[in-house]
Amino acid sequence: MPHDTSKPRPSAHALVVFAHPEPQSFNGTLKNTAVTTLREQGYAVEVSDLYGEGFDPAEGPAHYRERADLGVFAPLAEQRRAYEQDILAPEVQREIDRLERADLVVFQFPLWWHAQPAILKGWMDRVFVNGGLYTSSMRYNLGYFRGRRALVSVTTGGPAETFAHNGRGGDIDLLLWPLHYSLHYMGFTVLPAFRAHGIQGNGYAYQDESAFQAHLEHSRQAWRARLHQLDETEPLRFVDWDDWDESGRLKPGVEGYDYFIRARP
Amino acid sequence: MPHDTSKPRPSAHALVVFAHPEPQSFNGTLKNTAVTTLREQGYAVEVSDLYGEGFDPAEGPAHYRERADLGVFAPLAEQRRAYEQDILAPEVQREIDRLERADLVVFQFPLWWHAQPAILKGWMDRVFVNGGLYTSSMRYNLGYFRGRRALVSVTTGGPAETFAHNGRGGDIDLLLWPLHYSLHYMGFTVLPAFRAHGIQGNGYAYQDESAFQAHLEHSRQAWRARLHQLDETEPLRFVDWDDWDESGRLKPGVEGYDYFIRARP
Repeated sequence: MPHDTSKPRPSAHALVVFAHPEPQSFNGTLKNTAVTTLREQGYAVEVSDLYGEGFDPAEGPAHYRERADLGVFAPLAEQRRAYEQDILAPEVQREIDRLERADLVVFQFPLWWHAQPAILKGWMDRVFVNGGLYTSSMRYNLGYFRGRRALVSVTTGGPAETFAHNGRGGDIDLLLWPLHYSLHYMGFTVLPAFRAHGIQGNGYAYQDESAFQAHLEHSRQAWRARLHQLDETEPLRFVDWDDWDESGRLKPGVEGYDYFIRARP
Repeated sequence: MPHDTSKPRPSAHALVVFAHPEPQSFNGTLKNTAVTTLREQGYAVEVSDLYGEGFDPAEGPAHYRERADLGVFAPLAEQRRAYEQDILAPEVQREIDRLERADLVVFQFPLWWHAQPAILKGWMDRVFVNGGLYTSSMRYNLGYFRGRRALVSVTTGGPAETFAHNGRGGDIDLLLWPLHYSLHYMGFTVLPAFRAHGIQGNGYAYQDESAFQAHLEHSRQAWRARLHQLDETEPLRFVDWDDWDESGRLKPGVEGYDYFIRARP
């Protein structure tokens, strides 16, 4: 059932986190599609263009003007202190501000080495600040961003078949699991990822430019359709706090989760 | 059975890839332990200190002095061309040279957001060069580094129980799967990861300094023991080319792999 676009969502905000170095890439096109499609639905849309804004993905001492401990750099302790003292690096604070405004966060990236590109991994390393955006009691279904939605849009070089559960590229759900679980850890309601497969870069490994354009247009339309169905999309199912015992192990009999654990042989 | 240290391996080389911003960290200590222990066994050891050497993890156009296409940056096409023209960025060429010398590659890093830190992810994005270190026919068990071994040493903040197959932190084998599968893709024989759990950073969340030091010493000894048993360690089992059908799906009846896929419900 398509989303009723005649009923705009005047107060809704979306953030699109874009992690590809080339604006004219397949990923760049899908990012633009997300911006346009969400605006049509009444979202106010912001974009974190990680490459375009020169985001430094390496968490480290260089990002802390003042330090809790000048001798030894302990990332979690420094994050906590910088948050409490309100002296986070400006680009980290900017990303947090963007997240604060967003009811929906979309991540657009290519699958590089079975995971998100380093620039997006580092955005997580730096922006999901310990002691501020999560604590030992504020995570998973009690996480900071609970009630908000997150959605991954990923492209792969290999064809769809090879990313099936028995495919050579690796089960895409397992490959995305560390990222999806991190989003759940932060409290997000995580929607199933949108995937565009078989993308080898503009003009690379396509028979000709028209084959590339046809593939791009097909993916663009599929992505538009997905974005129009967000309200009808069943989110991924994760285990909640109530399902763990005191040692952090799953209580017996808990079922119905997606890709958390599998039966051991 | 402990490794016979009286029989040195005079020709063996090891590379330790270190991905933590603080040399005095728990990770830094384990890195030093690896260097010392491997040297005792007769390895010539090099270290890629990604933070210390200022490795830039963001693959992008800035790293290409000359481009195949100045209009649109397609990472795979540019990697291939730079390799073929022998004009890779100096730091990428340096890492490849180090890998070429290494019979054993050890990765030392903390688990951040259910994966390796961005600086290590970006090392993979940039150093595992398309068209040079892998091609469509040179990967998996036919990969460039076939016959060489890779070993991950990872630290986690949470305790070991929570990283069990039914643990709240996530099954550590599933979390490491994208990295392990990437190493297999490059041809490495992948040894099971060494894990040190419950590490919260120096002086952070420990009762006192002596509790931290006791934990550190315990992990150091366990790591030493693992490094002395490499030749007796059964590697992870991956699916080989012969096990795929023409569409890249697993042939019926193939079993005996570790964490590649699980039965779907």
